[in-house]
Amino acid sequence: MRPFWPISLFALACLPALATDAETDFSARARALHERLVTLDTHLDTPANLQKPGWNIMQSHNVADDGTQVDYPRMIAGGLDGGMWAIFTGQGPLTPEGRAHARNAALQIALRIHTMVAAHPDQFEIARTAADAPRIAAAGKRIVYLSIENSYPIGEDLTLVQTFFDLGVRVMSPVHTAHNDMADSASDASPAPWHGLSPRGRQLVVECNRLGIVLDASHASDQVFDQMLALSKTPIILSHSSCKAIYAHPRNLDDDRIRKLAASGGVMQLNSLSAYLVDTPANPDRNKAMAEFFGKYGGSRSLTPAQTEVLNRERREFMAKYPVKRANFDDFMKHVRHALEVVGPEHVGFGADWDGGGGVTGMNDVSCYYKITEALVQAGYSEKDLSNIWSGNVLRLLHAAEDFATKQKKP
Amino acid sequence: MRPFWPISLFALACLPALATDAETDFSARARALHERLVTLDTHLDTPANLQKPGWNIMQSHNVADDGTQVDYPRMIAGGLDGGMWAIFTGQGPLTPEGRAHARNAALQIALRIHTMVAAHPDQFEIARTAADAPRIAAAGKRIVYLSIENSYPIGEDLTLVQTFFDLGVRVMSPVHTAHNDMADSASDASPAPWHGLSPRGRQLVVECNRLGIVLDASHASDQVFDQMLALSKTPIILSHSSCKAIYAHPRNLDDDRIRKLAASGGVMQLNSLSAYLVDTPANPDRNKAMAEFFGKYGGSRSLTPAQTEVLNRERREFMAKYPVKRANFDDFMKHVRHALEVVGPEHVGFGADWDGGGGVTGMNDVSCYYKITEALVQAGYSEKDLSNIWSGNVLRLLHAAEDFATKQKKP
Repeated sequence: MRPFWPISLFALACLPALATDAETDFSARARALHERLVTLDTHLDTPANLQKPGWNIMQSHNVADDGTQVDYPRMIAGGLDGGMWAIFTGQGPLTPEGRAHARNAALQIALRIHTMVAAHPDQFEIARTAADAPRIAAAGKRIVYLSIENSYPIGEDLTLVQTFFDLGVRVMSPVHTAHNDMADSASDASPAPWHGLSPRGRQLVVECNRLGIVLDASHASDQVFDQMLALSKTPIILSHSSCKAIYAHPRNLDDDRIRKLAASGGVMQLNSLSAYLVDTPANPDRNKAMAEFFGKYGGSRSLTPAQTEVLNRERREFMAKYPVKRANFDDFMKHVRHALEVVGPEHVGFGADWDGGGGVTGMNDVSCYYKITEALVQAGYSEKDLSNIWSGNVLRLLHAAEDFATKQKKP
Repeated sequence: MRPFWPISLFALACLPALATDAETDFSARARALHERLVTLDTHLDTPANLQKPGWNIMQSHNVADDGTQVDYPRMIAGGLDGGMWAIFTGQGPLTPEGRAHARNAALQIALRIHTMVAAHPDQFEIARTAADAPRIAAAGKRIVYLSIENSYPIGEDLTLVQTFFDLGVRVMSPVHTAHNDMADSASDASPAPWHGLSPRGRQLVVECNRLGIVLDASHASDQVFDQMLALSKTPIILSHSSCKAIYAHPRNLDDDRIRKLAASGGVMQLNSLSAYLVDTPANPDRNKAMAEFFGKYGGSRSLTPAQTEVLNRERREFMAKYPVKRANFDDFMKHVRHALEVVGPEHVGFGADWDGGGGVTGMNDVSCYYKITEALVQAGYSEKDLSNIWSGNVLRLLHAAEDFATKQKKP
């Protein structure tokens, strides 16, 4: 089903130590199983890299060099068939100008995803229905669903939900790290303006249901989660979130809510971003320097290749000067195992936040993704379980959203 | 500068009769001159064909078979380097739903143009500045500027002008064949609501100037033309229009206005749509049957290849049953020569309405485009004149629009 790719180089970056023969044999069997599955990650921030000058999705990159974690060769190496490619917009001012700017930026990202696919029609394909994923995987191509992280681009104009649906968006979250027009954020320390969803946020839920878009509660406050769960006519997703029982970050979900999510048919996709997995000590100096770095290089300005070289060098220097505590693969798997123990393999999956801050020691980029399958096979999960975890659950949600939208249309 | 393409088959479709040796020699010299020029058509309705199932811009088509007039092989055959690829939206209801639908449809067309270019990066390139055209032509690729015909998609939200500018739009007309939010149409028999531009239409002019978009008065009423000429800070274009002095259609421009256009530095691009060139008798039966045909096949529904076959057959049957008086190449050249006589070669060019109703007997599709150069060389126009006519004039307008926008930005 999938093109063969030499994985030795990538495997060297993933393996913690020299393996014994028995381990190698086990690894090969787990890998073969992994390759039989349709695998989806529900939160790829990779579209942000598509505008990098000289950066090419078809070439293999090194996360240590340029910070990127997903490209075509590494997707093949890690056995990732595709996922939800995020149209992410950072929260800006809640003004007409700010909203229009966010809308335009989001449309540009959608365009970039589509032109990437158009430029490589034998390697990628846009997916618009749940049925598209297995078909595209069977054709040996990578699956490109579009998703929206933060509905800031929708602003005050809910007709834009249809616009983005037409562009292929099938998963949408109302809010990012700051409260906005739609909803309260889980990680905004300022007083919550809505105590959940705003009136417009409630309309957003109705509109997403009407069109067949799966609602995504990652980054939303607990109250938003509760209200989305109650309001949505089809099961919701947490496209990239972790477990509060393992590490009490406000962005993570507590066990009670994980159970409620599962009871309603929803899915939680585990994140691999260190600050959500383990306690990372506050570092005001680093935060200040980081803000300066983003001030210098953030936004959508295009850089020359020479400027990009400088950026990459300064990024490496920054990482060396301000080392940050990183979670490791076992820390990540603690969250995964916990979610599986609480609600079982029909309500768990992965949205590792690649190219958005994800990645742990031992699984630094998408080329190591198959390691999760190894770990779960070792923990006793069956091929059927893994099939659900890697895509079946998410496709079930897409199917439910499609079915509801189709039924709505009928007289 | 341009890839060689065997033109014999296309030439057979263009030549009226067997040529003598002297004529062939002359034709070859005119053709060689034509190939040295950068040639632009300022109104290609071809994007409408990009959604046709099975239709491929890289394959050669026959206008008699499927009604299409532009594809890559025929652009090469006719020596057309590129032009303004129109985002056309037919006028619909002036309601919030209608405007949102038009906006979404226009964004889809923009996406289609971009994915066409992304899929064929060695054959096409998006142009965003006047300087891009000669550079892209020198690289042997076709030039793809984007334009908007009918600002219905802008609706009540002028921030969308920036959206479309970001997507590459560099020429924009306020109105099509029916009055709308922005302006009165030249061909709407109902009372003109604005007596020219609406207040929002005036803001549209200001916004286009601010961004560096050339304003296009084709399809606009004479009053709109007069007001756009007075209001715009940079010269305007008529992207596809003909001469009222030759045929008195309300959509054509009178000599006085052609002179005023030229005096302000503007350009008139001659159209080849028969109903604007010669008197075509009214045919209510045909109009009724045409409306039924469009009702059956219009809109953006996608057809299966089998349905497309049926459509093409029914279209051919329709054309046979309801023959329409067609202008010929000489009729078209009468308008061209007239405009050249009135204002000279620095204010005239071509927007032949390919794939939008254009084409005359003897110049049925874009593969015959070089015939105009032949005719104008024979009429005594120099290579410099032809260079202006085929692109220099339009690029001057784009330069002027860019310069104004750049100066506006400076403190």
